[in-house]
Amino acid sequence: VDERVAQLRQIVSADRVLTDPADLIHWGQDWTRFYQPAPLAIVQVSSAAEVVELVRFARATNTPLVPSGGRTGLSGGAVADRGEVVVSFDKMNRVLDYDEVDGNLTVEPGVITARIQQLAEEQSRAYPVDFASSGSSQIGGNIATNAGGIRVIKYGLTRNWVAGLKVVTGRGDLLSLNNGLVKNATGYDLRHLFIGSEGTLGFIVEATIHLARMPGPPTVLLLGVPELSNIPALLALFQSKVVLSAFEFFSDAALSKVMDHTDKATPFRSRTPYYALLEVDDLGPDGEAVLLELFEQALSAEVCIDGVISQSQSDVNSLWEYREFISEAITPYTPYKNDVSVTPARVPEFLTAVDEFVSSRYPSFEIIWFGHIGDGNLHLNILKPEAMSTEEFKAHCEVVSDETMAIVQRYNGSISAEHGVGKLKLGHLQYSRDETEQGYLRAMKQVFDPDGIMNPGKLIPG
Amino acid sequence: VDERVAQLRQIVSADRVLTDPADLIHWGQDWTRFYQPAPLAIVQVSSAAEVVELVRFARATNTPLVPSGGRTGLSGGAVADRGEVVVSFDKMNRVLDYDEVDGNLTVEPGVITARIQQLAEEQSRAYPVDFASSGSSQIGGNIATNAGGIRVIKYGLTRNWVAGLKVVTGRGDLLSLNNGLVKNATGYDLRHLFIGSEGTLGFIVEATIHLARMPGPPTVLLLGVPELSNIPALLALFQSKVVLSAFEFFSDAALSKVMDHTDKATPFRSRTPYYALLEVDDLGPDGEAVLLELFEQALSAEVCIDGVISQSQSDVNSLWEYREFISEAITPYTPYKNDVSVTPARVPEFLTAVDEFVSSRYPSFEIIWFGHIGDGNLHLNILKPEAMSTEEFKAHCEVVSDETMAIVQRYNGSISAEHGVGKLKLGHLQYSRDETEQGYLRAMKQVFDPDGIMNPGKLIPG
Repeated sequence: VDERVAQLRQIVSADRVLTDPADLIHWGQDWTRFYQPAPLAIVQVSSAAEVVELVRFARATNTPLVPSGGRTGLSGGAVADRGEVVVSFDKMNRVLDYDEVDGNLTVEPGVITARIQQLAEEQSRAYPVDFASSGSSQIGGNIATNAGGIRVIKYGLTRNWVAGLKVVTGRGDLLSLNNGLVKNATGYDLRHLFIGSEGTLGFIVEATIHLARMPGPPTVLLLGVPELSNIPALLALFQSKVVLSAFEFFSDAALSKVMDHTDKATPFRSRTPYYALLEVDDLGPDGEAVLLELFEQALSAEVCIDGVISQSQSDVNSLWEYREFISEAITPYTPYKNDVSVTPARVPEFLTAVDEFVSSRYPSFEIIWFGHIGDGNLHLNILKPEAMSTEEFKAHCEVVSDETMAIVQRYNGSISAEHGVGKLKLGHLQYSRDETEQGYLRAMKQVFDPDGIMNPGKLIPG
Repeated sequence: VDERVAQLRQIVSADRVLTDPADLIHWGQDWTRFYQPAPLAIVQVSSAAEVVELVRFARATNTPLVPSGGRTGLSGGAVADRGEVVVSFDKMNRVLDYDEVDGNLTVEPGVITARIQQLAEEQSRAYPVDFASSGSSQIGGNIATNAGGIRVIKYGLTRNWVAGLKVVTGRGDLLSLNNGLVKNATGYDLRHLFIGSEGTLGFIVEATIHLARMPGPPTVLLLGVPELSNIPALLALFQSKVVLSAFEFFSDAALSKVMDHTDKATPFRSRTPYYALLEVDDLGPDGEAVLLELFEQALSAEVCIDGVISQSQSDVNSLWEYREFISEAITPYTPYKNDVSVTPARVPEFLTAVDEFVSSRYPSFEIIWFGHIGDGNLHLNILKPEAMSTEEFKAHCEVVSDETMAIVQRYNGSISAEHGVGKLKLGHLQYSRDETEQGYLRAMKQVFDPDGIMNPGKLIPG
């Protein structure tokens, strides 16, 4: 046994240091499946003090640490594939405090996102950040990646709800950042530097989350859109009168795959090239009339040609399924996935540019588009042609990635909208962050983690 | 003439370099009046390229630069009192772009805040950050101090509305941060590091501001509150049913001063020790009934004992005047002012602790409290007793400051809620940021401004 494993057993109790091969694989990877997990050990921490000790150990022995939450990431940010010690926050999952007046909930980083949503509901409030993996992801990981999801258009990203953070830096300092305050004009807000830093500056050991008001029951519209270029007009039309809590999008190809995969029928008679799913969660008593009027305006302006409005919570669930089942429905096709963004206004041109490149260069590739289009966030998915080997497909997809990123750069977009950089997008970071800016990122890293022990090889090109 | 002035005239046109004593005084200070302005020269820049040139000049000649916007700051952040070159953004005030779909307005930093509000209205949108100095302050300064104001409880601070920034760092690099994107998970968000950095890392040369939806017509309640400890219950009661766009507070002493200063009568029959001003800006058709019901609930629970609801825009303006005239009404009393915050729930205990200290130690001092209590932000004002010399009063107020800051620390609050640190609060920073954290602040400064030429002597204790 590595001498360091014995040291780890001194820092946390022996039963919290795991070295079984199955454990190393389980905790050594996230939802990306491109890397072979190979950590030295898994350590299940139970306190901030233990994390401080682990950082001291890491500096002394030059052993890299990888933070591990729900491991639902899609960029390899929580992958340990070169002898790292994985710092698992699974056991650090206590709820520490709730203040009713402030609406602030203080928790350890290992609390599951869905539990936070549940705790909020019990207080007649809401934690409005929501996404597919919220049943497994942990709040610490959500903050480290500034998670987004389906209701960003109204509620913003995870960043908006973090009122305070405690972090342990790569120097082993425990910092208490912002203390849950609303107003605090005392200089650089390091809290915001840590949000989205993917564990490369330090690890989150406590978070104070501000909870939102409880929304009303949601109403959903699913609209059939004949032309991509109609999407911004549709968005502007509805936003002029109501506050949208979601504005999602998918292509007819995506709908087909969902219908093949489930027993769902078409949502309405017409088939259209694109669909927009709109949600409103605070309709007043006259709200339904307003929505119907907007729907009719959209029909008569031909920005949509058909559609349906939910009449019940069961309708709401059923309409959301068309969008939510897409990922699952395409999984059997070994999809190449990419998560990018531009500003909402530029979505049609951007999407068309990528579409044209892919279909001219690879006419046999089927493209499935969906995403949080109200935020300019598109998920590009390309299905492997049945006849093509996985290896050949992957090689072609590298070319698609490079060109997609170049198009992102041309439209001043982001090479990673919400999945982070991790390991997966390191090679493309230069399309969003130029060499000068990367110099500043490296300098930040140097300040907080001078020995390069905090999640090295992620986020910042080496 | 200093040789450097000639150099400046090479960088910008000669008529944009001011050295008249009156100009040096005018542009060498903000609304604080504790410092003697003594800049070398004022330079009115017209482009980002000129700012880059000025940074090169500053590094080569070791001449500090001080950014200058509307100079409405209250902490001396824009004071130039030791031979600095003041970089005035007054002439860099063009509106560069507006995108209707994205709701993003791109401007130069010298645009006056009120003009942004006006431009937003013309687009049927709103720039919801508002405060007393918005008619003079500039957006660049607002961002550099992360300005707050009266509608933070609903709309958040300036930070929430900054979708993109261009900055020139103290190394002379022009960085383009976030490009107006909603979602951008490509690592450390340097945009947020610059927001609230008071020009100490670099200067803002362009900003993309996201505009909010246009709110509905406001309704205002002014309520008479018998006990300070009722304030959190009042806040919680109203927030359970409506979204407050303001929750302000002032004491009866403040009301008296406003009534002396203006020809306004009491807002309603009763006088109470405290008053709360509540605003709602998105009442639905049944909203007024909801507000009345809440008001009645508050009366029967005796959290307030009297009050009035606006019936017209003229009522709204009139009720706001009780709050807005306080500063002006107390100016003749040479007030000592402090701007601090705690979390909203802790306001009553905190305020009581400060009150008790001041009134036991200095029984002759009159305290005027007001502030954005929904954000936990209190403005403490102490009036000089007529018989006391200004010098003696100031000396006593230093003692009050020290003790207030110690109380702030005890309640985990902030020594500067929204006015920044500047020069004025440097000596108290340790009450909000411990030595370890200050080390990181200094390290950030070192990264972006290694020569210490960007607004030195501000924000970070030397």
